[in-house]
Amino acid sequence: MPTLHDNADSGNCYKVRLAMAQLGRPFTRIEYDTDHGATRTPAFLVKNPNGRVPVLELDDATCLAESGAILWYLAAGTALLPADRLEQARVLHWMFFEQYSHEPYIAVVRHWIKHKLLDAARTAQLPERHAKGYAALDVMETHLATRTFFVGERYSIADIALYAYTHVAHEGEFDLSRYRHIAAWLDHVRAQPGYVAIDA
Amino acid sequence: MPTLHDNADSGNCYKVRLAMAQLGRPFTRIEYDTDHGATRTPAFLVKNPNGRVPVLELDDATCLAESGAILWYLAAGTALLPADRLEQARVLHWMFFEQYSHEPYIAVVRHWIKHKLLDAARTAQLPERHAKGYAALDVMETHLATRTFFVGERYSIADIALYAYTHVAHEGEFDLSRYRHIAAWLDHVRAQPGYVAIDA
Repeated sequence: MPTLHDNADSGNCYKVRLAMAQLGRPFTRIEYDTDHGATRTPAFLVKNPNGRVPVLELDDATCLAESGAILWYLAAGTALLPADRLEQARVLHWMFFEQYSHEPYIAVVRHWIKHKLLDAARTAQLPERHAKGYAALDVMETHLATRTFFVGERYSIADIALYAYTHVAHEGEFDLSRYRHIAAWLDHVRAQPGYVAIDA
Repeated sequence: MPTLHDNADSGNCYKVRLAMAQLGRPFTRIEYDTDHGATRTPAFLVKNPNGRVPVLELDDATCLAESGAILWYLAAGTALLPADRLEQARVLHWMFFEQYSHEPYIAVVRHWIKHKLLDAARTAQLPERHAKGYAALDVMETHLATRTFFVGERYSIADIALYAYTHVAHEGEFDLSRYRHIAAWLDHVRAQPGYVAIDA
């Protein structure tokens, strides 16, 4: 059975937990205190030299890092990833969008606020990070105005990748009340078979 | 023939130009002045609602954005992307690493310095961005100490994705002289058939 090197509050780890639950793949979890260097130890850096969770450790001790890469590995050949080349590229489009234009603002601000890590330098960055987070939400809202899911009108790992930090964006003091299409999409994700909550 | 909505100085655009050159795929280029809002016009936002280049516009007007997604689309089924599921996940690992842990530091600092965009707020961020950029280079150096290329000992889009901003990191005042394994890898990339320079 694979082992997920995990952090309960991390949306990046939750993406993997959600995908594995929906694919019916059992796994064991090892929890790391990421705020206090638990993923920067020599033993952990062997698993991921970049010092971050999630890491999925397979039965043969192969370690995969980066939530997007793990999602791809798990979903390939399943209903969570289209088989068509253009649709696969669209799925990756949204997954790269999430990591570059969404996570550094919405996830990072949430982490700072929720974990009480706001020093003066970070507080000074809040207005710009909030603005860029809202810009990402605006892009999602426009896309979802005419769609149920992000790619090909089917639930995929693109939805999982974007759901993870969007549904807890309020914990970073993002006001989601003006995003009705995002709200409908969040409900569609929660209604998917095998759904588990981030704190499950 | 596809059209690349492009910026000559952007490493993200260069990734696409390099891959297409190496795959022998002709394309036309349209240049955008990204420093002055040329990718934020209503006409451009139809092509990419996130307002960024590169965008690859196919013959049927389909538009693909996000450099990593475009690379995937171009490379699928070619020698630039392994066919094995685990190796594909490893390729994506390095592509996500580049967009999350490398580009926001090395590419962004290069852009600020090269384009003279360093105001007080950005200058205050330089030490942290340089530190995180060096951390990414350290991860690459360790990985390359025992390898010629990033995945499976074959040149792939993982190498293209990481080459684009690493080989111009000195323009962001990163000192690459201590990274001898990265230096050897840069030489291997430059020696690949069909290689073109960023300013070609």
